[in-house]
Amino acid sequence: MHDPHAELTRLGLVLPAAPKPVAAYVPAVRTGNLIFVSGQLPMSSGQLLATGPVPSKISIEDAQKAARQCALNALAVVADQLGGDLRKIKRVVRLGVFVQSDDRFDGQPKVANGASEFMQEVFGDAGRHARAAVGTNALPLDATVEVEVIFEV
Amino acid sequence: MHDPHAELTRLGLVLPAAPKPVAAYVPAVRTGNLIFVSGQLPMSSGQLLATGPVPSKISIEDAQKAARQCALNALAVVADQLGGDLRKIKRVVRLGVFVQSDDRFDGQPKVANGASEFMQEVFGDAGRHARAAVGTNALPLDATVEVEVIFEV
Amino acid sequence: MHDPHAELTRLGLVLPAAPKPVAAYVPAVRTGNLIFVSGQLPMSSGQLLATGPVPSKISIEDAQKAARQCALNALAVVADQLGGDLRKIKRVVRLGVFVQSDDRFDGQPKVANGASEFMQEVFGDAGRHARAAVGTNALPLDATVEVEVIFEV
Repeated sequence: MHDPHAELTRLGLVLPAAPKPVAAYVPAVRTGNLIFVSGQLPMSSGQLLATGPVPSKISIEDAQKAARQCALNALAVVADQLGGDLRKIKRVVRLGVFVQSDDRFDGQPKVANGASEFMQEVFGDAGRHARAAVGTNALPLDATVEVEVIFEV
Repeated sequence: MHDPHAELTRLGLVLPAAPKPVAAYVPAVRTGNLIFVSGQLPMSSGQLLATGPVPSKISIEDAQKAARQCALNALAVVADQLGGDLRKIKRVVRLGVFVQSDDRFDGQPKVANGASEFMQEVFGDAGRHARAAVGTNALPLDATVEVEVIFEV
Repeated sequence: MHDPHAELTRLGLVLPAAPKPVAAYVPAVRTGNLIFVSGQLPMSSGQLLATGPVPSKISIEDAQKAARQCALNALAVVADQLGGDLRKIKRVVRLGVFVQSDDRFDGQPKVANGASEFMQEVFGDAGRHARAAVGTNALPLDATVEVEVIFEV
């Protein structure tokens, strides 16, 4: 039995307080066995880890770290939804990854891997997911990355 | 019991005819207890309420109104799917909001609130939803906003 | 009974080998009766059919062909998931279509029709789907189109 909490500890990570949405919606909704987590920004201790487009303002490496933070924040949200127990998650179903990009920047998969690899580290095989990674010219609060997640419980 | 039809009346709104898709797809698909509504544009009486990017061509305030119209159109679609009875909706699950944006415009959450707050006005707590709001440099028919919705019935 | 394999043969098409993801995720995930297929690029025999934005680098017509190839690749992925038998598909639920676009290009629905019409050709009425088609300034590998799909089995 893979224990996501033990994996987080192994990674030296503590779940942050579930980030509050910056607008009139909720962090997560459960319908049947699916939990839809709202698009997460790379907030850490109340500050964005990365703003502006890749690569002119942010390197691919820093954008990967930002994507990883988005994924961590999504875990915080779903943990809050599940009374703190991530072991209730059966698998990660889908990641939607939006990368603020200079025109024709083509490395969104590399950036998105920051979130994808994190899910696999924490959940093992159950962390393997379908994914759509795309570029965009603008994101909320000028964030470099936004990640939304569907979990199965 | 919250009555979405009464709320629409209170808001002085009448459901428009379900907008026809502008291409080879259908307005909505039901699978199990979920209804996926196609991306809606801010059409009102056959005309777009807003075209072009925020903020150089359209103000945030006008874009919010356009987002609200997209949400109203999504209601028209789902009502059509449900034989006219919005009371069959158990909750709004997820909004996907695409805002045509100047590069690095960062106010997508404010624009998307036009749709999100409308859902809450009409459905109360059942209107609270997960959301991904992102920018884009181009939308169908040069619309300022596109909103897709997942409902649970 | 509509036979998608017979339709593919009629169209002169052979399912390609399921494209491998270009990053740390899986091509498809099943949850309950839904299969989420990851965003597909217009890969054909290991090469992209179209790169760059519409219309400055790629015509609408060529972008439509690219969208059709994305849809074919999504079929290859879901067939792989289903032991090769597309007849297990009950219906196509949703297409998410991202079109690399010059600023304010507004013909995404036309481009997306390349994917949508293909689904209808192969699955008949069961191929009719909900859809969100949007523009973007950048896609993985500089692809002109990316298509993700939700199928019901």
